[in-house]
Amino acid sequence: MRVLGVDPGLTRCGVGVVEGGPGRAPRLVAVGVITTPSDLELPQRLLRIEAGLTQWVDEHAPDVVAVERVFADQNVLSVIGTAQAAGLAMLVAARAGLPVHTHTPTEVKAAITGSGRADKAQVGAMVARLLRLEAAPKPADAADAVALAICHLWRGAANDRIAAAVARQGRASA
Amino acid sequence: MRVLGVDPGLTRCGVGVVEGGPGRAPRLVAVGVITTPSDLELPQRLLRIEAGLTQWVDEHAPDVVAVERVFADQNVLSVIGTAQAAGLAMLVAARAGLPVHTHTPTEVKAAITGSGRADKAQVGAMVARLLRLEAAPKPADAADAVALAICHLWRGAANDRIAAAVARQGRASA
Repeated sequence: MRVLGVDPGLTRCGVGVVEGGPGRAPRLVAVGVITTPSDLELPQRLLRIEAGLTQWVDEHAPDVVAVERVFADQNVLSVIGTAQAAGLAMLVAARAGLPVHTHTPTEVKAAITGSGRADKAQVGAMVARLLRLEAAPKPADAADAVALAICHLWRGAANDRIAAAVARQGRASA
Repeated sequence: MRVLGVDPGLTRCGVGVVEGGPGRAPRLVAVGVITTPSDLELPQRLLRIEAGLTQWVDEHAPDVVAVERVFADQNVLSVIGTAQAAGLAMLVAARAGLPVHTHTPTEVKAAITGSGRADKAQVGAMVARLLRLEAAPKPADAADAVALAICHLWRGAANDRIAAAVARQGRASA
């Protein structure tokens, strides 16, 4: 399974593609960041982010897109921009017929480091170790996108196992 | 000048097209609402809103798009959805090469009724009177989108006059 992780943002939108499967170490396919200048008008920034995300989907053909869930307990003005970038990631995924899943920053940190309160340096270090990289991807938004993709690989696999078990249980008791 | 007003929302996104110019009463070209079911997954809802807005732009060929500015002093969860719908309106406008302007709800109410604290009924009644309609467009989101378009017609014209006066002044003093 190939996952495109998106850490949404207007100024820096992190993107990372990771491949993995049951019993296989995750492998980094590509990582980067889509940037737009803050002095550009918002509609043009959105257009560039959409184009950038579309290019990542076209180029790397992910099976699923994982987007960081916009969370509500932050500055409302920054929520608006983050929500708009996240909306574009979902739009681009849906247009390509890809499933979209969201994970909260806490879920990602917990999945990668074992602690939901890990800082960016810890997340970056674990991403580097898990993918056998010499250093964490830079900037932090890029590392976060990769962390999100790994989190989705693991949670997705776990969720699939749980769903399969529930389905078996359902059939057994029917 | 033909203005497409968009009152952004995930469940009901109001859209209204109004035509007008200096010394001419505004004329309603079309009004409606793009709806998406709340039980549909968010990426699919965003895709439908984008398709609906694109259709309105293609069909009515506006010169400019006016979008209600998402304002920060409301429930953060509802801000997220509104911001995403507003982002799509800006995206669709930018893709069509159209200028986008935003106006706050208070600016719209003040422009239409003379009071920034007017309620929805007052805005609807003034929209009906200004456009010589028998009743306000329904639902309220549709009336709000039309009010936004009228507000833009008027503010745009006023801003253009001010900009022109400033430019003349600049040339005179140069």
